[in-house]
Amino acid sequence: MRINFARGVPAPESFPVADILCCASQVVSRNMLESLQYGPARGPASFVRWIAERYSVNDMMVLTGDGSLGLFELFCSVMLKPGDTVFVESPTYDRVIEILTARGARVVAIALQEDGPDLEQFKSALADTVPRFFYLIPDFQNPSGLTCSAEKRAAIAALARQHNILLVEDAPYRLIRYTGATLPSFFELAPEVTLHMSSLSKIIAPGLRAGYVVGNEALIGKLVKAAENRYVTPGNFALSIAGEWCRQGHLPAQLASLIALYGPRLHAMTEALTAALPELHFGRPQGGFFLGLHLPPGISNSAVREQAQQLGLALSDGKGFFLTGGEHFLRIPFCGLTVAEIQEGVAILRRAVELARPA
Amino acid sequence: MRINFARGVPAPESFPVADILCCASQVVSRNMLESLQYGPARGPASFVRWIAERYSVNDMMVLTGDGSLGLFELFCSVMLKPGDTVFVESPTYDRVIEILTARGARVVAIALQEDGPDLEQFKSALADTVPRFFYLIPDFQNPSGLTCSAEKRAAIAALARQHNILLVEDAPYRLIRYTGATLPSFFELAPEVTLHMSSLSKIIAPGLRAGYVVGNEALIGKLVKAAENRYVTPGNFALSIAGEWCRQGHLPAQLASLIALYGPRLHAMTEALTAALPELHFGRPQGGFFLGLHLPPGISNSAVREQAQQLGLALSDGKGFFLTGGEHFLRIPFCGLTVAEIQEGVAILRRAVELARPA
Repeated sequence: MRINFARGVPAPESFPVADILCCASQVVSRNMLESLQYGPARGPASFVRWIAERYSVNDMMVLTGDGSLGLFELFCSVMLKPGDTVFVESPTYDRVIEILTARGARVVAIALQEDGPDLEQFKSALADTVPRFFYLIPDFQNPSGLTCSAEKRAAIAALARQHNILLVEDAPYRLIRYTGATLPSFFELAPEVTLHMSSLSKIIAPGLRAGYVVGNEALIGKLVKAAENRYVTPGNFALSIAGEWCRQGHLPAQLASLIALYGPRLHAMTEALTAALPELHFGRPQGGFFLGLHLPPGISNSAVREQAQQLGLALSDGKGFFLTGGEHFLRIPFCGLTVAEIQEGVAILRRAVELARPA
Repeated sequence: MRINFARGVPAPESFPVADILCCASQVVSRNMLESLQYGPARGPASFVRWIAERYSVNDMMVLTGDGSLGLFELFCSVMLKPGDTVFVESPTYDRVIEILTARGARVVAIALQEDGPDLEQFKSALADTVPRFFYLIPDFQNPSGLTCSAEKRAAIAALARQHNILLVEDAPYRLIRYTGATLPSFFELAPEVTLHMSSLSKIIAPGLRAGYVVGNEALIGKLVKAAENRYVTPGNFALSIAGEWCRQGHLPAQLASLIALYGPRLHAMTEALTAALPELHFGRPQGGFFLGLHLPPGISNSAVREQAQQLGLALSDGKGFFLTGGEHFLRIPFCGLTVAEIQEGVAILRRAVELARPA
């Protein structure tokens, strides 16, 4: 495969390798026990402290662990019984659908509009069943790239408060914003009903698996207990390194460098798509890793994928991001690709769309 | 708390800190993508390859991940439905009981004798129900320190073959043997019905969370798929470091050094216990991290724990290692304690036992 549009990976040239090694050396000399011995299931105290300070919460409201998806699965093991109802955006992160389905949850899809979840659908679903939680990615959503507006955030937070619905806010892309102003997170708007999930996988490097969740003390306490029973101690060596990197103050410069690297890639992608496939609709992401492309009604993503595959372009299955439907959706990543790869990939995509068009 | 007999941790002075840092530097310069980017759910190819060679199997029979307990929980998520029967030794690893119970398994305890599981009980339980699997720790068992004899291994392997029972062999202590000859593992005796679990937590350092399982390709394939859905990629930075450390050939010298460090600690523990508490029975471990101490019928471990606590000695709850009973059992660790701490701990234990004795 010449070009890969299937995975949303960060650019390896962005990985701060020298700083990671320097932090590795620091953590073992500063606190060998914290990074190498069995330790608290919450993760290394110094990393927990840094996160708690950043979110202005106490340490008991933080749990770190091996990637935020793993922490989400742990959360589901504590929260969900088979048959419990969960709301998600539609489309949403494909692996979250798989985790919820594996737990036997009844998953209700709330359509995502350009400015966030359809509030009328949300209210009408709510009239039917109050869910155990509502999983949302408000900033530069995976897979659509869309961002929930300030107005909808306020409305969703108010409804969550009113009906005591837990909002599970997945925010791994939140800090990687190319244009526009940062909007308040659900955790800022309604901390008492929000579990905020994030990760440094997209910022430092995925291989450190530095994920975390922030939420109310009672819920986090249950998750810590479940984590202890399930794996005793998370990857404290890698988590200590991530914590040390944050404590050393590398985050602002790294974010600036990611935005300088990825912004032009997003620009190249939207320019190439607009020029090559003017009839195709896509939302314009203000940040993050993806945009969502809508094929015309007559053209299925499976036909396009098949043609693209033969021409050397890998595409992910758009249907995976939907409970039902999604036949005309494609998730297009841009961060882990050079401008030349983006242009070549879009050229192949254009040919694949032409070949997939019914005669 | 002055002395901690509650946790079975390795000695931090054994951690090969300089080699870990050297391997960290090696893995990012040799193969940065393998250690820092998203990658296969199976774990870093170079670590998988090293394990496969060591066990003389192909790479598709290996899954690495963040600690062997976490991999066991993943395995249970694939294997168990509520109500399924699982056999365990009695006593057994407390966290395994918790994981099985959380999954709604029907757990059947097979009494552990000095030379391994009671075969008559095993056969009689088998006549009642063929379990989904039998979880065993044949070498230097946690918590008893006991080792399954060659004869019983052969008999259990034969029964497993005959009834097509999966043996889940947890072997984290297997390489840390102070006396006696190594016995064949279940994976060596009956590879087609064995899932072998192990970890480098007790050998390199727990903070790397370098666990792995080896088993038949179909089962491992299912676990890899479940791992991908649950956490995408394991802690590849730490796992690559563990793999590099193994590939560099540090294992034999590290094992020799652990045995030289821990052997005298076991000797100090058995000498101190025999001198201080001659009436108490305990099995003599040939390796590993623990021995199991049996209090006289009149003295409960909860009374001893309470007294010990007040005198500055932490003990773990012996009942946690049993489904029912265990009121007179204490798990005693010795690796992460100096000889002076062992002697002071046993002196406190002696006073605690005296104080707990009914008037």
